[in-house]
Amino acid sequence: VKTVHAHTGAAELGPYRHFMQKEIFEQPRVVGDTLEGVTGIMPELFGDEAYKVFKQIDRVLVLACGTSYYAGLTAKYWIESIAKIPVSVEIASEYRYRDSVPHPDTLVVTISQSGETADTIAALKHARSLGMEHTLTICNVATSAMVRECKLAYITRAGVEVGVASTKAFTTQLAALFLLTLSLAQVNERLSDEEEVGHMKAMRHLPAAISAVLALEPQIIAWAEEFARKENALFLGRGMHYPIALEGALKLKEISYIHAEAYPAGELKHGPLALVTEEMPVVTIAPNDALLEKLKSNMQEVRARGGQLYVFTDVDSRITSGDGVHVIRLPEHYGCLSPILHVVALQLLAYHTALARGTDVDKPRNLAKSVTVE
Amino acid sequence: VKTVHAHTGAAELGPYRHFMQKEIFEQPRVVGDTLEGVTGIMPELFGDEAYKVFKQIDRVLVLACGTSYYAGLTAKYWIESIAKIPVSVEIASEYRYRDSVPHPDTLVVTISQSGETADTIAALKHARSLGMEHTLTICNVATSAMVRECKLAYITRAGVEVGVASTKAFTTQLAALFLLTLSLAQVNERLSDEEEVGHMKAMRHLPAAISAVLALEPQIIAWAEEFARKENALFLGRGMHYPIALEGALKLKEISYIHAEAYPAGELKHGPLALVTEEMPVVTIAPNDALLEKLKSNMQEVRARGGQLYVFTDVDSRITSGDGVHVIRLPEHYGCLSPILHVVALQLLAYHTALARGTDVDKPRNLAKSVTVE
Repeated sequence: VKTVHAHTGAAELGPYRHFMQKEIFEQPRVVGDTLEGVTGIMPELFGDEAYKVFKQIDRVLVLACGTSYYAGLTAKYWIESIAKIPVSVEIASEYRYRDSVPHPDTLVVTISQSGETADTIAALKHARSLGMEHTLTICNVATSAMVRECKLAYITRAGVEVGVASTKAFTTQLAALFLLTLSLAQVNERLSDEEEVGHMKAMRHLPAAISAVLALEPQIIAWAEEFARKENALFLGRGMHYPIALEGALKLKEISYIHAEAYPAGELKHGPLALVTEEMPVVTIAPNDALLEKLKSNMQEVRARGGQLYVFTDVDSRITSGDGVHVIRLPEHYGCLSPILHVVALQLLAYHTALARGTDVDKPRNLAKSVTVE
Repeated sequence: VKTVHAHTGAAELGPYRHFMQKEIFEQPRVVGDTLEGVTGIMPELFGDEAYKVFKQIDRVLVLACGTSYYAGLTAKYWIESIAKIPVSVEIASEYRYRDSVPHPDTLVVTISQSGETADTIAALKHARSLGMEHTLTICNVATSAMVRECKLAYITRAGVEVGVASTKAFTTQLAALFLLTLSLAQVNERLSDEEEVGHMKAMRHLPAAISAVLALEPQIIAWAEEFARKENALFLGRGMHYPIALEGALKLKEISYIHAEAYPAGELKHGPLALVTEEMPVVTIAPNDALLEKLKSNMQEVRARGGQLYVFTDVDSRITSGDGVHVIRLPEHYGCLSPILHVVALQLLAYHTALARGTDVDKPRNLAKSVTVE
């Protein structure tokens, strides 16, 4: 067992109050860095043997913890939709201790910022002990144990992350997982040249698109001042934005100590709706109107009990602010990469809420940066 | 769209204060009823064609909402461990709207108390439209749309459930899902005669084992008086008791309006530990010591911040009550059927907490018994 200490002296805060804020604002650059040099989709982005491995596998098993687990959940939506390969995503600490049904044609994908997460490394070794030899990691530290243990790797270029609550590590993981999705799709003959060109263009534009979300900071600060007075919150998402709701709730928990919980929107009426009062804001990640249409009856319930809805939507959605419904529009509708933009808005919401509450943002109570023990 | 009204006049409360309490106490009988006539394991328990279907499938997809979804999650642990068939469990409202990767050799299992849950029926039809024709339902209403729509079925005998928060429907679903597990194992040549005899014996003894858990009511009432003063709670479980932690948290949410959230125990240090203070009790479902061993360092963190641990364990566990650690022991260690016993204790905790808070237990605010609209 080895403990990894983040070297807080290594980085300068510059104009920022906290490393977390700095790291949120670094995202246009580090996502760009992570995608730098990628001029086209090819399995070799993940290693020399990747083509051979990708040809052999017919299912994906993602193993991760915490925020990295939510990156994996997002990737499941992408890979099943675009590459048409079935994906299981498992919490590493659960997977390693349960009886599962291994299959040798599985691509085992681990996700870990540090590459030293004890449960994820143990889960990887467990998978290998069950005969699954096709291993790939998405990792931010090239010299880590995880990279050494895996056959294939994509190294994200988030740089050193000092804030305990992960931000730029998450969005760079998503960028790498999107590259994995496209590479698997290509090998699986599910990616036309035209689609490749379209996705490449969207990825090149990501830094600018993230910058445009960061420019929403003043609007988000206004919401954060409301949130700072709450002790509970619900986050709703659907589809690939459900893991983003999970991550948004986790951020708020970690640094503001508000008890935030995420649900896939359709589950609201199967229980959590009972919690809604004026003291329980409901954050909804709804890039388009489809989710909001489905939520209409729930929203009326929320409203009738004085609940406040905080909706993150996109520029082309028809919803408008009104009594008890607050709306922030992201400046672009961004297709499959939309989770990368929406999570940035949620990071800012968590950061500014914590700031308003005066917590120790970069070192929240009880938490360590890398969990290198069980 | 059709609305199903629970006919509250149909049942007598007898010595109970609420239908929910009555239904909790009916569980020995209705679990017995659900297993009545089962003298041995055979696929035909699920319909005449079941043997043929079970021979053809090599994976299981469970579709459900709310409490039924947690029954499905529990079944995943059982089926993968005992029958060695891989299982995906999906929230119906998510599954029906996302791109997934269908496979014709899938057994599609729907779980619904009423058999009229709109999202689950729509998810079933969606699965069928993708070419998956092997359908089976676990349902409490033999005349329901769901039973008509599915090729195979097991009808639970919970009787009419009046309380909005499901209790006896859940445990009878688990009993039926355990029968499904064993039948799949048998067809998959994973069930020896000796194992069958052992499981049958354990199932026959379930009513008595549940009664023994119900006898813990006075101890649970003492805890409930503490819980009634809280506004938040964490529930931890591991393996097949993680879904039970989810269900326990949902029960508390639904009827006491306490914001309870469940985590697989290993995830605690990846975020939610930041929430722990003396105001946030941590309920741990730990039938044996293994989970508690893993949680030791977390428990110290919890204790250092004044957090109170409420541990449900079994008779043979070494953990004892002490400063900030409260222990209730279930009278028997019950192997794979342990989730059915532990959830009964959590139902009682939710019920008595709600009672102490004076909420409308049988008709919690904002919720309907059967969700027959989207």
